[in-house]
Amino acid sequence: MNKTHSGWVISVRLTPPSLKDNTADADRLIHELKNQLSADIIDIDLPLLRHLPALLRESGYAVRCLCFKDQGCWRLVGVKAGDDPSIFFGVAVDLGTTRVVLRLINLETGDAVHETAFDNPQIPIGPDILARIHFASTDEGLKAIQRLIVDGMNEQFRQMCELSGVRVADIHFLAVSGNTSMVHLFLALPPHHIIREPYIPAINVMGTIPAKDIGVSGSDAARIYVFPNVGSYFGGDLISGILYSGLHRRDEISILVDVGTNAEVVLGNKDWLMACAGAAGPALEGGVSKIGTTAGPGVIDRVVIDPETRRIALHTIDELPPRGICGSGMIDLMAQLFLSGMVDIRGRLVDVNCGDRLREADGIRRIVLADAHESATGRELSISQVDIDSLIRSKAAMYTILETITRYVGVTFDDFATFFVAGTFGSFINPRSAITIGMIPDLPETTYQTLGNSSLGGAALVLTSRAALDEVAAIRDRITYLELNVNQEFMNRFSAAKFLPHTNPSLFPSVSVCNLNLAGLT
Amino acid sequence: MNKTHSGWVISVRLTPPSLKDNTADADRLIHELKNQLSADIIDIDLPLLRHLPALLRESGYAVRCLCFKDQGCWRLVGVKAGDDPSIFFGVAVDLGTTRVVLRLINLETGDAVHETAFDNPQIPIGPDILARIHFASTDEGLKAIQRLIVDGMNEQFRQMCELSGVRVADIHFLAVSGNTSMVHLFLALPPHHIIREPYIPAINVMGTIPAKDIGVSGSDAARIYVFPNVGSYFGGDLISGILYSGLHRRDEISILVDVGTNAEVVLGNKDWLMACAGAAGPALEGGVSKIGTTAGPGVIDRVVIDPETRRIALHTIDELPPRGICGSGMIDLMAQLFLSGMVDIRGRLVDVNCGDRLREADGIRRIVLADAHESATGRELSISQVDIDSLIRSKAAMYTILETITRYVGVTFDDFATFFVAGTFGSFINPRSAITIGMIPDLPETTYQTLGNSSLGGAALVLTSRAALDEVAAIRDRITYLELNVNQEFMNRFSAAKFLPHTNPSLFPSVSVCNLNLAGLT
Repeated sequence: MNKTHSGWVISVRLTPPSLKDNTADADRLIHELKNQLSADIIDIDLPLLRHLPALLRESGYAVRCLCFKDQGCWRLVGVKAGDDPSIFFGVAVDLGTTRVVLRLINLETGDAVHETAFDNPQIPIGPDILARIHFASTDEGLKAIQRLIVDGMNEQFRQMCELSGVRVADIHFLAVSGNTSMVHLFLALPPHHIIREPYIPAINVMGTIPAKDIGVSGSDAARIYVFPNVGSYFGGDLISGILYSGLHRRDEISILVDVGTNAEVVLGNKDWLMACAGAAGPALEGGVSKIGTTAGPGVIDRVVIDPETRRIALHTIDELPPRGICGSGMIDLMAQLFLSGMVDIRGRLVDVNCGDRLREADGIRRIVLADAHESATGRELSISQVDIDSLIRSKAAMYTILETITRYVGVTFDDFATFFVAGTFGSFINPRSAITIGMIPDLPETTYQTLGNSSLGGAALVLTSRAALDEVAAIRDRITYLELNVNQEFMNRFSAAKFLPHTNPSLFPSVSVCNLNLAGLT
Repeated sequence: MNKTHSGWVISVRLTPPSLKDNTADADRLIHELKNQLSADIIDIDLPLLRHLPALLRESGYAVRCLCFKDQGCWRLVGVKAGDDPSIFFGVAVDLGTTRVVLRLINLETGDAVHETAFDNPQIPIGPDILARIHFASTDEGLKAIQRLIVDGMNEQFRQMCELSGVRVADIHFLAVSGNTSMVHLFLALPPHHIIREPYIPAINVMGTIPAKDIGVSGSDAARIYVFPNVGSYFGGDLISGILYSGLHRRDEISILVDVGTNAEVVLGNKDWLMACAGAAGPALEGGVSKIGTTAGPGVIDRVVIDPETRRIALHTIDELPPRGICGSGMIDLMAQLFLSGMVDIRGRLVDVNCGDRLREADGIRRIVLADAHESATGRELSISQVDIDSLIRSKAAMYTILETITRYVGVTFDDFATFFVAGTFGSFINPRSAITIGMIPDLPETTYQTLGNSSLGGAALVLTSRAALDEVAAIRDRITYLELNVNQEFMNRFSAAKFLPHTNPSLFPSVSVCNLNLAGLT
């Protein structure tokens, strides 16, 4: 693949001006770019224009241009001398509510140069987006919360560039993928109506934004592309994820699920895309139990329980003494508790099988994973019946959402060629465990494919491929958004899914019936 | 004419959002505008987006929108509630090297509200553009000279708005018409190559510019439209002038002449436009003789010499004691001196006819218009033989340019249906006098039509009419620019034109032969 040509950097050599051809500098360059890009209009900002006359002459009229398609028009975003050894860089941004991930990309080769992540600096305002939206209800609040993310990003740019030997001024383009609310807070657009019926964003589809207009570092003509939203609860991060998965290009039907507090689901193929989103609850992210936490050193990420001895073996990240449990650890734990008969099909802790691991205080039963002397915190690590119930509601919500959208479009789970699991968290889920607890359908494990950070992946694609950008608009326009009605039918399905793995075990034939019976009989 | 519809302000009433139609605010508005404007793309800047959610809800989804076509795309520049009594204002700007003229326009009715003019604050850097371009050869110089004009403009905006009871924040759009160099200095684009062979501007055709990007006051999303240039020596002010004259819409051939230091000429009709520009010399503007000055109180603007007594009667502006002479006064004077036989056909002062008005010092002869005791300055006001020679070279250059372009396109002066004289200065010229000295062709005086400030007039048109903006692009694209080659043929014509009115008096049948003979015989 000729990267230079399918990407956004174009080399041009111009005929120098003469008395017989005294076309202006910018017009001369743009005329040639129009030819090469088959573009009708190419816009150019003042900061670039100011450099252009000297640059063209010093380069002998041989230059490299960074262009970008902006809502159907084109825009010249950067120009360098043909022999300038410096490089056009871009940054793909996964603008998460909790974590922000940046990938520095050489726009001329398409290569990733560096990747870094940092906690969203808005977290102190509120860990969840609702608190931040309330904080942003005044102009000052909105500006302050924008400053937090922009300043944080700029500081990371500085560090990332220093580590990579890149000048911040060589960052010419950003592609930002985030949920609708985060994008509003990033651009200081009032987010008020996103969370109030009928849930209206300020904008879904926008052009590229001058980076300096919101204070983001980079070249003086740097621009920011923001993935379009479908709506308040279906953001550009999911469009980006679909792009990255490629499900919109396939003949067969695939499904893409972003597992988190909100479960976002897209189902479709090259002809149609159906999406929905619903609250699955924070339990799936490990955000509910007292010891629940995001993945990190010392965090329990895998659990195995010997079905004979019922000994609980914990695996922690970096194999340090345990200090908490992440979402994938919780799902593993739940599956293992179930398979070993330590919880029954309703998710209730079974006395006889839990042995001395089972404790009780204030009428709440809990299963101890590590005693105080075994843990990194010096405190007992345990999961209570309340935590388990919460996880079961979350997994049931997830399954019900999957069931609802699948039935809505008139297909069955068996029609899925691929079941994409997106999101950093999703990548760590053991599909076998998720099937065991009935959170996801009982499909062959090879059907499941984890995408990693698909939001970041899609942003990186847009930075390096013109075709990818064109696909974004096509994806957005093709998505039908299904509003999930929490009606009686939905509630019936949800109730049925609140069992392990389900009230109807024939839906989960691969989950050992032996244990099901065992658990069911206690 | 339905002003609202042919102009840039569109009223729209939107269906409010609902759970069944949760299109984002901006997308909802833009969708409706696209329908009304038959536009493919409508861009919107962040500052407007930030106001939009509250504005739509407070207005009950009935709003007035200021839109503008930007290089083929559309742009939303302002939004107000439908019942907001405040008004969208625009400013038409004639960005002259010497004078800057502003006209405040109500964009909803098209009415001019106020007009004001001020000396270009860059004059202290250099009265002529060359000195300013040299000053702007460093980044700091360029920025400083831009600041001068922008600060001056902002101060005038403030005063103009105060006088008119308009808020500066209600200025949403500017249309700026200026020569290529002035536009470069206004936008801080490096002007260096404009004045060096092969004379290349940084840009000829540009999109609208955010006013805040160059520090111009107005609404926070205000934009500036700058008329496109044809080249370094044919600026947007002339495109604007053509637009205002309407010669590009006529069946018959007309000619438009902007008389100044540079003579700019456009010839054509609805099918073709041919343009050229050439140095005519500052003499025509009254900028050469020691007493030459721009029009103002006490400045000689008309001269009558009694052919019998040869008494010189001066008319001054506001009928104050004379302090100088302006360009139109010089042309009048020259014509009267010639008709009264006080100069001969070569423009030489004739002793016998000048009487005691003729003085001489250091070998240079001069004709006295006012003795020291008669003038406002307390010094003698006189025109020297050197001044006269300079004026004759200028008028000869003008005539030669007119002759050259007319012959080039294969027509004659008699083919002109209208001879438009543009520019503030041009408006004051007495065509009869200009014909008498052979500066302009000997056409019936009714053929001559003064346009006043056509550059400002064209800018005002663009602010109030969509059709006018479309015409600008058509005019620019249709103009063929004729590079004047100062070759032997040109020099021959120039030599022939250095007589009063011409070596070939049959070209000027209306100029009294009697006097010609008289003058020729001395």
